[in-house]
Amino acid sequence: MGTQQLESVPEPKYWHLKTVLSEALDSEFSVGEILPNERDLAARFGVARATLRQALEQLELEGRLQRRRGVGTTVAPPRVGVAVGTEQHAWPGGPEDAWQPVDCALDAPPASVATALETAPGEPVHIVRRTRMTHGQPVAAELLYIPQSSVPDLSGIDAPSGAARARAVLRELQRLSPEGHDNAVELGSARADDAKELDRLPGAPVLIVTTRFLAQGRTAAVSVATYRADTCRLTFGDSGNVEIHQDPQRRAS
Amino acid sequence: MGTQQLESVPEPKYWHLKTVLSEALDSEFSVGEILPNERDLAARFGVARATLRQALEQLELEGRLQRRRGVGTTVAPPRVGVAVGTEQHAWPGGPEDAWQPVDCALDAPPASVATALETAPGEPVHIVRRTRMTHGQPVAAELLYIPQSSVPDLSGIDAPSGAARARAVLRELQRLSPEGHDNAVELGSARADDAKELDRLPGAPVLIVTTRFLAQGRTAAVSVATYRADTCRLTFGDSGNVEIHQDPQRRAS
Repeated sequence: MGTQQLESVPEPKYWHLKTVLSEALDSEFSVGEILPNERDLAARFGVARATLRQALEQLELEGRLQRRRGVGTTVAPPRVGVAVGTEQHAWPGGPEDAWQPVDCALDAPPASVATALETAPGEPVHIVRRTRMTHGQPVAAELLYIPQSSVPDLSGIDAPSGAARARAVLRELQRLSPEGHDNAVELGSARADDAKELDRLPGAPVLIVTTRFLAQGRTAAVSVATYRADTCRLTFGDSGNVEIHQDPQRRAS
Repeated sequence: MGTQQLESVPEPKYWHLKTVLSEALDSEFSVGEILPNERDLAARFGVARATLRQALEQLELEGRLQRRRGVGTTVAPPRVGVAVGTEQHAWPGGPEDAWQPVDCALDAPPASVATALETAPGEPVHIVRRTRMTHGQPVAAELLYIPQSSVPDLSGIDAPSGAARARAVLRELQRLSPEGHDNAVELGSARADDAKELDRLPGAPVLIVTTRFLAQGRTAAVSVATYRADTCRLTFGDSGNVEIHQDPQRRAS
């Protein structure tokens, strides 16, 4: 491996076990297969339960294993590249928009979002909830914050809430001329309702993508999207997708 | 909060505790301050140690707390926006390159990288190790894979290894005319030597950014960069930085 000739550091016991387990997953298990229980695995590899658990946690972080409610620990499929670049993550409601509106509410946004939107503290904005599916699986849940000033003519539309209201808000948002957007990606933990929607346990690691949509020289909308960290590889750039799956062997020195 | 009017789901006990703890961090603790030990915290909030530990793990995932070797659990500073967009993450070795070369080796890349580089299995490539600093802190460690065909005239240069060799490889890479790059971001766990370099514990959650650099109609180099997930918010897009810090209160319904 390329790292051997570079700085090498002694690796903890669970790390070596992780590598051995990873090879076992490749050679003996198929995607979706349920792993033996921890006692049996610990016995087979001659390690303590605690060491095994650490190794399993690493493999889960790396997307090799999935812990599923009422099922157990299964071998995960390769992560799916989800484009967060210009094409797919286009202006909300646009023709190439990958999101489905679910609900809409008028409420005060979090302080950090209000600042970005330059709305007064506590001033209600439209909060559109949307979900994103890939291959029939939910991969992300989003809260899209749209100040009333971005959709001034909305009052004429009578759908009070729900998906219909959400579509109406997005339709109005389309009247603005987009001036681009930017993204930020960070690690987070799944809120209970996002977790349910994404079929994850509450608090599971997620990738939080904050997007600022710019129009008429200001921030016309802010999106806070929660992506499954176990199954998603977020891709950026015009080519849309980097076809390099993280190779578990890659990092084993 | 905006989520109240949307689908609401009962949240587990540790989740409520997380919210309470988060408010306590805001009101009673300052950045860098060391938290009381788990026993005292559990007693104060009247919860079991296990519940407390779950809540602390959530707050660590969200970048509110840091576990530091030999120090304990401290209150984390706000995450730093690190640009992974066009300007900062420019062609390797370019004038705006944010990375410092550390070492260089000639070795076989992992299979997934070899495929992306279209090199033969086991064919050695230049593997440049680089680090990236922000505000004097290491925020990322990178392995940059460069096929020998991308730097054909390198043989003339005699520095056999080390940073000098790395700079020589990057200088040769500069001769190619860039045709852009794309990125993929996914969750990973810190390899022991990356962890040491980033002052993290081995296996800590990290954001792995895989970048493909394109030139002359093919992939001229592949970068696999490991960013600290606790302190970094990766930003994309020309504006470079979305100044929206994840607000811990945001997601508390």
